[in-house]
Amino acid sequence: MTERAGAPPDHPPDHPPATEEVELVGHIVDSLTLAKVLDLIVDAGADYRMEEFDVGRTSTDQSRARLVLQADDPATLARLMEQLQVHGVNRVASEPAVLVACDHDGVLPAGFYSTTNLPTRVLVGDRWSEVVNAEMDCALVADADGTFRAVPMHRVVVGDHVVVGLGGVRVDAPRRPRGATPFEFMSSDASSEKPKALLVADVARRIRLAKASGARVLAVCGPAVVHTGAAPDVARLVHAGWIDVLFAGNGFATHDIESNVLGTSLGVSIDEGRPTEHGHANHLRVINEIRRSGSIAAAVADGTVRSGVMYECVRHGVPVVLGGSVRDDGPLPDVITDVVEAADAMRRHVQGVGVALMLASTLHAIATGNLLPAGVETYCVDINQAVVTKLADRGSHQALGIVTDVGLFLGQLAGQLGA
Amino acid sequence: MTERAGAPPDHPPDHPPATEEVELVGHIVDSLTLAKVLDLIVDAGADYRMEEFDVGRTSTDQSRARLVLQADDPATLARLMEQLQVHGVNRVASEPAVLVACDHDGVLPAGFYSTTNLPTRVLVGDRWSEVVNAEMDCALVADADGTFRAVPMHRVVVGDHVVVGLGGVRVDAPRRPRGATPFEFMSSDASSEKPKALLVADVARRIRLAKASGARVLAVCGPAVVHTGAAPDVARLVHAGWIDVLFAGNGFATHDIESNVLGTSLGVSIDEGRPTEHGHANHLRVINEIRRSGSIAAAVADGTVRSGVMYECVRHGVPVVLGGSVRDDGPLPDVITDVVEAADAMRRHVQGVGVALMLASTLHAIATGNLLPAGVETYCVDINQAVVTKLADRGSHQALGIVTDVGLFLGQLAGQLGA
Amino acid sequence: MTERAGAPPDHPPDHPPATEEVELVGHIVDSLTLAKVLDLIVDAGADYRMEEFDVGRTSTDQSRARLVLQADDPATLARLMEQLQVHGVNRVASEPAVLVACDHDGVLPAGFYSTTNLPTRVLVGDRWSEVVNAEMDCALVADADGTFRAVPMHRVVVGDHVVVGLGGVRVDAPRRPRGATPFEFMSSDASSEKPKALLVADVARRIRLAKASGARVLAVCGPAVVHTGAAPDVARLVHAGWIDVLFAGNGFATHDIESNVLGTSLGVSIDEGRPTEHGHANHLRVINEIRRSGSIAAAVADGTVRSGVMYECVRHGVPVVLGGSVRDDGPLPDVITDVVEAADAMRRHVQGVGVALMLASTLHAIATGNLLPAGVETYCVDINQAVVTKLADRGSHQALGIVTDVGLFLGQLAGQLGA
Amino acid sequence: MTERAGAPPDHPPDHPPATEEVELVGHIVDSLTLAKVLDLIVDAGADYRMEEFDVGRTSTDQSRARLVLQADDPATLARLMEQLQVHGVNRVASEPAVLVACDHDGVLPAGFYSTTNLPTRVLVGDRWSEVVNAEMDCALVADADGTFRAVPMHRVVVGDHVVVGLGGVRVDAPRRPRGATPFEFMSSDASSEKPKALLVADVARRIRLAKASGARVLAVCGPAVVHTGAAPDVARLVHAGWIDVLFAGNGFATHDIESNVLGTSLGVSIDEGRPTEHGHANHLRVINEIRRSGSIAAAVADGTVRSGVMYECVRHGVPVVLGGSVRDDGPLPDVITDVVEAADAMRRHVQGVGVALMLASTLHAIATGNLLPAGVETYCVDINQAVVTKLADRGSHQALGIVTDVGLFLGQLAGQLGA
Repeated sequence: MTERAGAPPDHPPDHPPATEEVELVGHIVDSLTLAKVLDLIVDAGADYRMEEFDVGRTSTDQSRARLVLQADDPATLARLMEQLQVHGVNRVASEPAVLVACDHDGVLPAGFYSTTNLPTRVLVGDRWSEVVNAEMDCALVADADGTFRAVPMHRVVVGDHVVVGLGGVRVDAPRRPRGATPFEFMSSDASSEKPKALLVADVARRIRLAKASGARVLAVCGPAVVHTGAAPDVARLVHAGWIDVLFAGNGFATHDIESNVLGTSLGVSIDEGRPTEHGHANHLRVINEIRRSGSIAAAVADGTVRSGVMYECVRHGVPVVLGGSVRDDGPLPDVITDVVEAADAMRRHVQGVGVALMLASTLHAIATGNLLPAGVETYCVDINQAVVTKLADRGSHQALGIVTDVGLFLGQLAGQLGA
Repeated sequence: MTERAGAPPDHPPDHPPATEEVELVGHIVDSLTLAKVLDLIVDAGADYRMEEFDVGRTSTDQSRARLVLQADDPATLARLMEQLQVHGVNRVASEPAVLVACDHDGVLPAGFYSTTNLPTRVLVGDRWSEVVNAEMDCALVADADGTFRAVPMHRVVVGDHVVVGLGGVRVDAPRRPRGATPFEFMSSDASSEKPKALLVADVARRIRLAKASGARVLAVCGPAVVHTGAAPDVARLVHAGWIDVLFAGNGFATHDIESNVLGTSLGVSIDEGRPTEHGHANHLRVINEIRRSGSIAAAVADGTVRSGVMYECVRHGVPVVLGGSVRDDGPLPDVITDVVEAADAMRRHVQGVGVALMLASTLHAIATGNLLPAGVETYCVDINQAVVTKLADRGSHQALGIVTDVGLFLGQLAGQLGA
Repeated sequence: MTERAGAPPDHPPDHPPATEEVELVGHIVDSLTLAKVLDLIVDAGADYRMEEFDVGRTSTDQSRARLVLQADDPATLARLMEQLQVHGVNRVASEPAVLVACDHDGVLPAGFYSTTNLPTRVLVGDRWSEVVNAEMDCALVADADGTFRAVPMHRVVVGDHVVVGLGGVRVDAPRRPRGATPFEFMSSDASSEKPKALLVADVARRIRLAKASGARVLAVCGPAVVHTGAAPDVARLVHAGWIDVLFAGNGFATHDIESNVLGTSLGVSIDEGRPTEHGHANHLRVINEIRRSGSIAAAVADGTVRSGVMYECVRHGVPVVLGGSVRDDGPLPDVITDVVEAADAMRRHVQGVGVALMLASTLHAIATGNLLPAGVETYCVDINQAVVTKLADRGSHQALGIVTDVGLFLGQLAGQLGA
Repeated sequence: MTERAGAPPDHPPDHPPATEEVELVGHIVDSLTLAKVLDLIVDAGADYRMEEFDVGRTSTDQSRARLVLQADDPATLARLMEQLQVHGVNRVASEPAVLVACDHDGVLPAGFYSTTNLPTRVLVGDRWSEVVNAEMDCALVADADGTFRAVPMHRVVVGDHVVVGLGGVRVDAPRRPRGATPFEFMSSDASSEKPKALLVADVARRIRLAKASGARVLAVCGPAVVHTGAAPDVARLVHAGWIDVLFAGNGFATHDIESNVLGTSLGVSIDEGRPTEHGHANHLRVINEIRRSGSIAAAVADGTVRSGVMYECVRHGVPVVLGGSVRDDGPLPDVITDVVEAADAMRRHVQGVGVALMLASTLHAIATGNLLPAGVETYCVDINQAVVTKLADRGSHQALGIVTDVGLFLGQLAGQLGA
């Protein structure tokens, strides 16, 4: 079976699939080019068959791949080919380019070839002609002498002959001079710019799948979950059975209890929205009362705590590990102040976890990521891209980063899961 | 009338209000201390009467303020007093401190005094005694020799005598050595950590108020509005009449049209979630088709564009100014490519605007902020705190920053406004 | 004595100082306007005398301040007046505006009045005339009917009559509708955009002053100090006696030792630049060897550790507190794994500290900030503005944020201090 | 020749190279695993020969690679093997694991095997035994029943038998379930955490190489270059001939001229550190004076401008393109206000550019990136990781991101280049 989620359609399409034979030459393995190409194919809902693959024997040799692409329809295939060409993928078939004349100034013929910034050649008759300049997102205009220029849309004029379609155009694969340098290529898309409703739906779907398969769901919560107003959403998720184990620190647990014990009026709720963990006597008073009760469970039993995430965890037998940190006030009596013991307690609870949600947490999320086996699906949700990248980079090969506002994300997630 | 929103209660409370006379001494004007104190009073739903105010005549003199605080009930007043003491506010009344013995190790008596990190004195009998160390969030424990120590909660033991309540405790106001240095105090709360549902509700309320008063609502949209999946929400807001004028650039308009003209399948929507404005031939093809139609309005008329934000603006006569930038592809025929003319067009449309929403836009938001009169309520929504701070800092005295995910924010806002 | 650094000149200037009487009316205390105005005066090297100050008795009353400004020369005073007018400060003197005709299209007369975005009036003859629109950074052009318009520079034409100088122009103070809302005004300048060499020099100067006064200097170091290549700079500062106590965690100490024990070649140094604390066996091997030695001091004594920050601290008797965290590998034997004990150890070492440097640390920096008395000058250095703001917001009234690259900052600081 | 910088040593090492035959099985192409493995080999200064490569024919087939690694010495090879094992690379040689007993509690034997979080087997005698749990950065301890457990260092006790060395241990390659989901793996290292002196040296080296080869160097400058105090460094680079062409906007040019025309005293320099482009009459006055002169070159000629970046560009004939934007004040007469014309002007100047430096610029940097051919080495320097990622993601395949403070970076770069 495949590791890719691109499932086959349930019913065969009415029309035969569209196919195209393509090739790619260069340092395509170590430059990530081939991996990116295969990604794009599957992301487009298409598929491939590797017909030939000559891998460079040493780090100085080029590699060469020949693939047959297959998509459900010609339009999908054409869109895919345009995306692939940016990475140096060329059609194997060799037919001359089609030229069409512009009929309006500043407007291109339909189906115009859109350039990459790679070195490019055009087949006219039986001769390959170099494009004299390389610029992205332009059209290829034929000059009188048979050469071609990359020309931006606004500069074409009536009568310019422009390449239409992908036929007869070839590009060189991009080169990435890497080697032993202190640099790395940065490749993450600015992932705050994603369709967020889709992301939420996908996380909900994966949680459902994990639960259906008997796996457990772990939530790791930072204080911002409370500050952004999302603690009631987490409480609903615990109440409805979606969360099986919870890791957090003294701050999250205290803020959760404080907002439920003291915070009912608008003024107070707003005030709690401010992340001033210190200088707030309320915070200390709540810790002091739980210390007086002896534990959070005792405080639930004696009626001190009557709602919230901690309350629901106690009520529903969801195990909680509160790991201490040097910045803790109090702390709450449930906090494991020895960090080695705290990590050991976390170790005991990660068994059987299939999905881990890291919710606006840095310290406890990194600690958790260190303990998880490679197969656990991990979602790191934070508004700060640097935090998400840092978490997603740490060891766990399954970590997916979501740059969003945990305060709005959790409300939607709880809604999607019917919690 | 007041400029503060702390409206009087509609009906008088059943009990007499709680009051307290307090004073504050030091460089309280230029250090922002007094402003912060007055803020906290009103934020707490309380009020004040300035009984006496001696302002330092020169930059080297101290000032002194004496106020009477008034709150609806003693609990509110007590909470407020704890917050104010952090800023050096002391009760004028001079009564001795109340000491209570601890009855559990590591647990403080109810109502314990919670320390600030300011120099502190305690009145015992008729003698003021210095606290020997200053540390926040501790209790004050009496030593055998009559001095006091700030002791963290976990260190108190049975029999320790601890100050309870605010009586008999005084602190010095904080000093802020400013002067001609290259530094500035950073004072913004990490505002991504706010209760987000409340923020959305408040923006909705203010939009309703503005519309009810006959003012116009301006939206300034960046491309991330489309990438995060929120363009349909903006289209609903335009359709329902909540947005009266729209400023954007070539990127926003093109992405909006592209997602409506080409993007119906999941694959394509996802793909649009990526902020690759270049290297995407779809993007260029859409621009080319609008150029062929001659304008966005013409493309709506000839059926090329059938939905989306641009479509709704054309249909509902909402004026749009698309200001050009050097990074534009195409651009669309509606883009004003001369930036001086574009700014002049924006000038013409800001008349009568009462609320401006800056939605994941930097360039056009700054340009707009430069043109708005001081009275316009401006909300800057972006996931990047640095962008929000930058926008909010620019001139416009009314700019409020909201660090959140515009993709989720706009869905909730449209919902709140019933769009 | 003053708390402001605006020292008087050592020798009297040759010319008499320039003075101006100004006033400011509105909600100028709670809106921070007055504080900002006093700041600007001192920042400009000028001074003030408060002649009259009527503070609003309640939160609904306006206040009114009348000040005499004094600067060394008229040019400084004129620049200051332009800055102050943005905040609603007007001259008390009432003289008619001076109008000068433009002699080039798109060019203003020298000394033109530059607008704010506040409601504005102009005195012509003996009549105050309203400006019909409010826009920043424009000129005031007289219309034929005696009214004035704010006109951008590029729109003036030859013959337009433009207000020159500040005489005869008045603005209303800005209003800030605050009250009990979930919003806060964000007021921090985007402080990554500061002249960095000046900041470094100023921190160096303050460290020198603190040391000269007998105060101790505390450094709180995060792992990024090592990753960015700045650990040798910290080692030099310790060696030269500039740092008296050091707080950090297992990560910083391990990376420091690892880079000194194992890291000599380019390949290894680069590799250490990557923040992968896990998945790196080297990291664990170093911890294991120190555990075998028994402590860092023992590892220095037995020759296992021969350079670096930890080495210099051992050699120079600089106390180090390593506070544990749940994400720690190993940990090193010196790490205090009980976080309550770790915080207590930190408490013991903050006595006498006059300057605290928080260097790319979040967890330990917040923990330290919680323990420091209000008087300690604290510098929070981090590349992430959100981290700096968070640290600077925490209680400590003296915290100054510097958004910069700690890797380059520490090299310059060590250079400035001759370390 | 190779595209990789891992050049062979000039002289043969004294000892024979160390070699190891390894293999890797799984979805290693599309999961980026193979590319990462080849990267690590070259980054370590080692090399490889691909002995066998069976690529999966379809997206559901596994691939299998067999390589011979070669390093200069066994220590380098051993370190490399540890890094590779994290990605599922196993030795082909099959020898039993070596077990060594612990002789101190909490201390591992030298050379202990450090675990990954992948499924792992150990060869004991002739039987492969599964490791019962997977956790990173642990030791493998043999249980009495012949199974193995991953145990953290602090939990081993005297007498525990621990695997030493890589012999007899195999791991499964990581799986990355991708497919058509809205997520992307985030793979950029948190690149603010790099050894910064090395990065500066490398950029300087590449600029020298480019100049030596006859290529031109382009600088794209944002206003923060001036605000952070780095404009004099850019001026020195222009003066010394290191910069051949400069792109910027009205803001950069105006701030540069303003700081040179008006800014000599400390007070003024500090003031310029604040990014308030508006509300500052100085800014407008400077623009007005250049408009009066007619152009920047004319203002240099008539003595209005006597130093700074713009001055040096005029003096040394370095072409400057100032592209307009809707937020511009004035603008300066040299600003090309039509953005399509501005982009065309930039197009004309990118010919022959070999290195592009994007310096704290977003708008103009993106615009430039759109125009550059794929071969241009591009360095994006900004303090904001999101900006750097965004720039580096845009099309240009050569863009390298450097998250640092441009104010300190440029000073060091100018120093390195002897400017």
